[in-house]
Amino acid sequence: MKIALIQQSYKGTKEAMVADSVAKIKEAAKAGSKLIVLQELHQSEYFCQSEDTKFFDYAKSFNKDVEFWAALSKELDIVLVTSLFEYRAAGLYHNTAVVFDSGKVAGKYRKMHIPDDPGFYEKFYFTPGDLGFKPIDTSVGRLGVLICWDQWFPEAARVMALKGAEVLIYPTAIGWFDQDSKEEKQRQLDAWITIQRSHAIANGVPLISCNRCGFESDNSGVIDGIRFWGNSFVVGAQGEFLAKAGEDEEIITLELDLNRTKEVRDIWPFFRDRRVEYYKDLEHIYCD
Amino acid sequence: MKIALIQQSYKGTKEAMVADSVAKIKEAAKAGSKLIVLQELHQSEYFCQSEDTKFFDYAKSFNKDVEFWAALSKELDIVLVTSLFEYRAAGLYHNTAVVFDSGKVAGKYRKMHIPDDPGFYEKFYFTPGDLGFKPIDTSVGRLGVLICWDQWFPEAARVMALKGAEVLIYPTAIGWFDQDSKEEKQRQLDAWITIQRSHAIANGVPLISCNRCGFESDNSGVIDGIRFWGNSFVVGAQGEFLAKAGEDEEIITLELDLNRTKEVRDIWPFFRDRRVEYYKDLEHIYCD
Repeated sequence: MKIALIQQSYKGTKEAMVADSVAKIKEAAKAGSKLIVLQELHQSEYFCQSEDTKFFDYAKSFNKDVEFWAALSKELDIVLVTSLFEYRAAGLYHNTAVVFDSGKVAGKYRKMHIPDDPGFYEKFYFTPGDLGFKPIDTSVGRLGVLICWDQWFPEAARVMALKGAEVLIYPTAIGWFDQDSKEEKQRQLDAWITIQRSHAIANGVPLISCNRCGFESDNSGVIDGIRFWGNSFVVGAQGEFLAKAGEDEEIITLELDLNRTKEVRDIWPFFRDRRVEYYKDLEHIYCD
Repeated sequence: MKIALIQQSYKGTKEAMVADSVAKIKEAAKAGSKLIVLQELHQSEYFCQSEDTKFFDYAKSFNKDVEFWAALSKELDIVLVTSLFEYRAAGLYHNTAVVFDSGKVAGKYRKMHIPDDPGFYEKFYFTPGDLGFKPIDTSVGRLGVLICWDQWFPEAARVMALKGAEVLIYPTAIGWFDQDSKEEKQRQLDAWITIQRSHAIANGVPLISCNRCGFESDNSGVIDGIRFWGNSFVVGAQGEFLAKAGEDEEIITLELDLNRTKEVRDIWPFFRDRRVEYYKDLEHIYCD
């Protein structure tokens, strides 16, 4: 299966962003990609840098956005993983990955783990998902779609794998603060790559992570802004790198073999040996 | 806190192994180490390469072994993490880490996840632990001691951290088969390092992994033998390397700061955001 990841910087408006995505999706589809993954909240800037009710307007078009990407996936006969701002009811919004399969909505995943840190005020915008960790069946396989902050939680990846996800997919938007030291930046990037690779290893599945790139300033002035670090990557079922982007705009395309999972799990049979009767404490926030 | 890891190759007899360990422990203690970690089953060869009842004799001395290492920890006033073959009852044995604190048994951990693969026939020797994942309190801190195969299971590290473990410690015995390709060997070593680093990252705690080194032949002839890959290492609470051994015998010593955990968890507040109400599926072997 040929796949593509589209790593983009913000173009100033939603119209420009969508036009850029469409052009790149068409290019990737033309080159034979059947599964195309976009970055987190790819239609706009990463607006969670500040808390401002005006940004809820972005979610107004959710139904139209769904129709738009559905139509594109139909035109190109592809599976497309998008990341949209979902309006569910007045004052109730989600950070939602919608997966399209040749014109149909194959399924959606509402981001379960929501961050909230200076520059990443997501708890203001997004209600934590209530759909749980359910893989989405498509014509290219059963996709374990998770979003950004989810990537730090081994539980999320594990549940997806236990439910048969054949590949883990993370649209994401993560970057550096310019004022951090070079060493701290390296630790952060390295930790981000390492923990995602570990989900591939622990579960014997390949993993796709599509990140944003470029600098976006914080107009509220709380911080200077975020320098999204790119570095989108794909690893195989042993966590080995299959492809990795740099810090600038890039389209990654590669052949991904979902059949290696059986081979890897047969030699590394972690699923055989889990001690589920001793995992109850995982359901506690803390054991004190 | 100064700590030491002792990475050893097999010396031909239990007496020679113990003498070598004692000499190195004394050297590390003299240099100021307060916490000293030994590799998995450090008293003998890695006997699980074949299934042979004669090796159960190694466990006969379990009580005497405990007395021996207790006395050494008292003499040197150290916390010592050992890895012993525990005789519990006729036909019932465990792979057990016993932690000593200046002459006292601070606690023990019975390996919970037991591998069984060609060259690693541990299910023949060891009943899976029944003590669960409980950190051990010592004068140097609360230690999350796990053993080898446990390192592939994020659940084990997480439960230890939820119970307040301040550092994760893995005595281990893992290596290559000579007939594997260079690429496969690299993938295996890299995966082993990556998944352990990820436990440090996910839980915001430092991690110590002490592995065996050197070649041990398989006298049963099923395989040639195992080339234990050394590479013992210590990472900090962001998964960053603090020390790493090569493939030969080595004593790693370093200063480890357990107080960084609060600092790291305050900026990476993964514990704040876990969705425990959606983690019930982790208690299933598979969700089909």
